[in-house]
Amino acid sequence: MVKRDMTRQFLEEAYCGESKAHMKYLIFADEAEKKGLDNLANMWRAIAHAEYVHAKNHFKALGYVGSTEENLESSREGEDFEIKEMYPVYNNSADFQEEPEAVRSTHFALEAEKIHEGMYAEAKQKATEGKDIEGKTYFICEVCGYTTWDAAPEKCPVCGAKKEMFTSFSNK
Amino acid sequence: MVKRDMTRQFLEEAYCGESKAHMKYLIFADEAEKKGLDNLANMWRAIAHAEYVHAKNHFKALGYVGSTEENLESSREGEDFEIKEMYPVYNNSADFQEEPEAVRSTHFALEAEKIHEGMYAEAKQKATEGKDIEGKTYFICEVCGYTTWDAAPEKCPVCGAKKEMFTSFSNK
Ligand SMILES: [Fe+2]
Ligand SMILES: [Fe+2]
Ligand SMILES: [Fe+2]
Ligand SMILES: [Fe+2]
Ligand SMILES: [Fe+2]
Ligand SMILES: [Fe+2]
Repeated sequence: MVKRDMTRQFLEEAYCGESKAHMKYLIFADEAEKKGLDNLANMWRAIAHAEYVHAKNHFKALGYVGSTEENLESSREGEDFEIKEMYPVYNNSADFQEEPEAVRSTHFALEAEKIHEGMYAEAKQKATEGKDIEGKTYFICEVCGYTTWDAAPEKCPVCGAKKEMFTSFSNK
Repeated sequence: MVKRDMTRQFLEEAYCGESKAHMKYLIFADEAEKKGLDNLANMWRAIAHAEYVHAKNHFKALGYVGSTEENLESSREGEDFEIKEMYPVYNNSADFQEEPEAVRSTHFALEAEKIHEGMYAEAKQKATEGKDIEGKTYFICEVCGYTTWDAAPEKCPVCGAKKEMFTSFSNK
């Protein structure tokens, strides 16, 4: 783990930069795929994975990988901050500045983070008992990020998107 | 696209926060999987995808999705900054502060970014001609992020990892 403050600060910034680049490339890959540019989409996704490796190396040097319980608490804490502080303020400010697109995107995020916080809190309880969580299939709304499990709803309760707009995640 | 400066600044920060959370959850998912906690790994990956949806909504509200050519130039520019400014400074500072882990992780990133910049520049040329790039299989070193195509090297030229440590990306 790094010891000096300035090196720590730089690695934090590098972790942020790699995370933003990774995300941007995944977004651009999806856009390219929509236009039928499959080879370009594949290149963007491959490079996004390289940025993942870079971010992971910085994250580990920062000492941020802990026990399963600690990793769940770190995840839960981030969601808690977004629910109680970050998104209410950003959403309120977007409303105040009459920016409907930003009101929408911050509202969508806030609603999903509330669910995420609960999922991490419950999983942390299991981890304290030394157990894995129950196996579930998760469903994510591609429009707003609403997160649920077992089945996709007929209509997304947050954004109104149809069942077909959900992507499922299960253990292969 | 948002118009007001403060809303823009907040969305930039939210994009950064979502990108970092997404990345953290992918890292924790990999750690959970290594410990045989497959259900937890699946949950972390599903939530990471919800953060991707949030980040994409913010990114679009910021007006950052452009034409294919513009998206490639945005990607190339980011790499160029990392090659010429960010990583040389961070690597030099880590060396100056005698932080070997940070010297290593910034060196690994710098070497891969040089390759990425060239890939984006070449792809941009094709996009200018209205074409997709040639179909290739890409290979990413899981230790350092070194990026190559057609075949994985016997030994990674940047970190020395063996061929087996490479992950491949091709169009399904
Ligand atoms: Fe990188
Ligand atoms: Fe979340
Ligand atoms: Fe939704
Ligand atoms: Fe989020
Ligand atoms: Fe890169
Ligand atoms: Fe390598």
